[in-house]
Amino acid sequence: MLSKAKLKYIRSLEMKKNRKAEQAFVAEGPKVVGDLQGHFTCRLLIATAEWMNENPAFVADEKCMVTTEELTRASFLQHPQEVLAVFSYKEEGCNPLVAADELCIALDDVQDPGNLGTIIRLADWFGIRHIFCSQATADCYNPKVVQATMGALARVKIHYTDLVGLTALLAGNGIPVYGTFLDGEDIYDKQLSANGLIVMGNEGNGISQAVSKQVSQRLYIPNYPKGVETSESLNVATATAIICAEFRRKMRE
Amino acid sequence: MLSKAKLKYIRSLEMKKNRKAEQAFVAEGPKVVGDLQGHFTCRLLIATAEWMNENPAFVADEKCMVTTEELTRASFLQHPQEVLAVFSYKEEGCNPLVAADELCIALDDVQDPGNLGTIIRLADWFGIRHIFCSQATADCYNPKVVQATMGALARVKIHYTDLVGLTALLAGNGIPVYGTFLDGEDIYDKQLSANGLIVMGNEGNGISQAVSKQVSQRLYIPNYPKGVETSESLNVATATAIICAEFRRKMRE
Repeated sequence: MLSKAKLKYIRSLEMKKNRKAEQAFVAEGPKVVGDLQGHFTCRLLIATAEWMNENPAFVADEKCMVTTEELTRASFLQHPQEVLAVFSYKEEGCNPLVAADELCIALDDVQDPGNLGTIIRLADWFGIRHIFCSQATADCYNPKVVQATMGALARVKIHYTDLVGLTALLAGNGIPVYGTFLDGEDIYDKQLSANGLIVMGNEGNGISQAVSKQVSQRLYIPNYPKGVETSESLNVATATAIICAEFRRKMRE
Repeated sequence: MLSKAKLKYIRSLEMKKNRKAEQAFVAEGPKVVGDLQGHFTCRLLIATAEWMNENPAFVADEKCMVTTEELTRASFLQHPQEVLAVFSYKEEGCNPLVAADELCIALDDVQDPGNLGTIIRLADWFGIRHIFCSQATADCYNPKVVQATMGALARVKIHYTDLVGLTALLAGNGIPVYGTFLDGEDIYDKQLSANGLIVMGNEGNGISQAVSKQVSQRLYIPNYPKGVETSESLNVATATAIICAEFRRKMRE
């Protein structure tokens, strides 16, 4: 049975300030919960009898068998899925100079949780292990973000930081800082490196002016055919996908 | 002033059956409404005095100046934006053999409105003029889809149809039918044509079995580096973006 206190605790984690105070977040469904297992400590697990029976070895500080009705009350999903877990997280620091050795992403105020989750998932696909986010970027532990990552949070580390300082540090150390602009250079004509930082901007406003100044490599995804009337821009997650794919394709050449 | 009848009419268009009965949909904000102008007949426009004054030439069967409070009541957005329009649409037939001459997309039960809107927007970017959707795919006139297209509905035509029949027809006529599968061929190693159909599948289940049988060209987006543990798949909109970008890149070679 799900106690009122536990229900209240889970529901409280919808809000960022509570997640931050508790250093905890909610993940749902067999796929996402299963993927995060072992990468984060599970503080509380609630699941149907069926799921519990099928997953006896799942390690959690506390487990609670619930009915579908109880799960529905606790869930943040429109269609709750058998299991919901509260995981602990730690805010680990990361030296941004890691970008000297490998490709990283920076997000400058990406605000839509779906976009952030999708970007974390594709970073995982393309072997990008670190995403640096401006403080105004959506919270990666927001339940909507966690679900959109489809478990990629197990492998991709997210760091919230001051992007102006970070990009200035990298630029000062001669590490390439890439950004996408409507007047940038065609990504297919440009040399792309195996290291450095790819900065992606806010959904409406793109990359902020202060961060733009630190971008040494201005990129552009060409539309097709050239010169015809088209959408003004691409959605930030799809643009990130095309750019990451092209970086990785060039590494095979 | 916004009458109760008009408010009720606008709000009724949240539901697909009402949109279908009325052959009408809602678009919001200066950017999206502006882009759709001229491409669809505007039946009703409601806007703030400021927007009305700045856009005196906007053609609509009926215009109604409203307060911000009235706009908020009518709007489907979390942050309503100055103007909301009801546009008429026509269900136009389209001969699927258009795919003999140009690249088209088919969506096999894509269910998330954000994904559908994002795909319409990127189709526009890559000069793809026709998207064929299975009947179970999200409705392109859903307010969430319309907003996510960012105006691309002005140029990209969406056709709801039986995809099994459509893909069989194309395959029977020797027109390439592409699909993405985890056991497909690397998109970077494969020849891609300037015509044909790219089929993208449902968020959870991929391409249905019946449609899969008609796919003559099985594609795969390689992850990086090869062979490491990663996410099982990419989000459907980001996968579509990478594939369309690669088709268009190969056309430049």
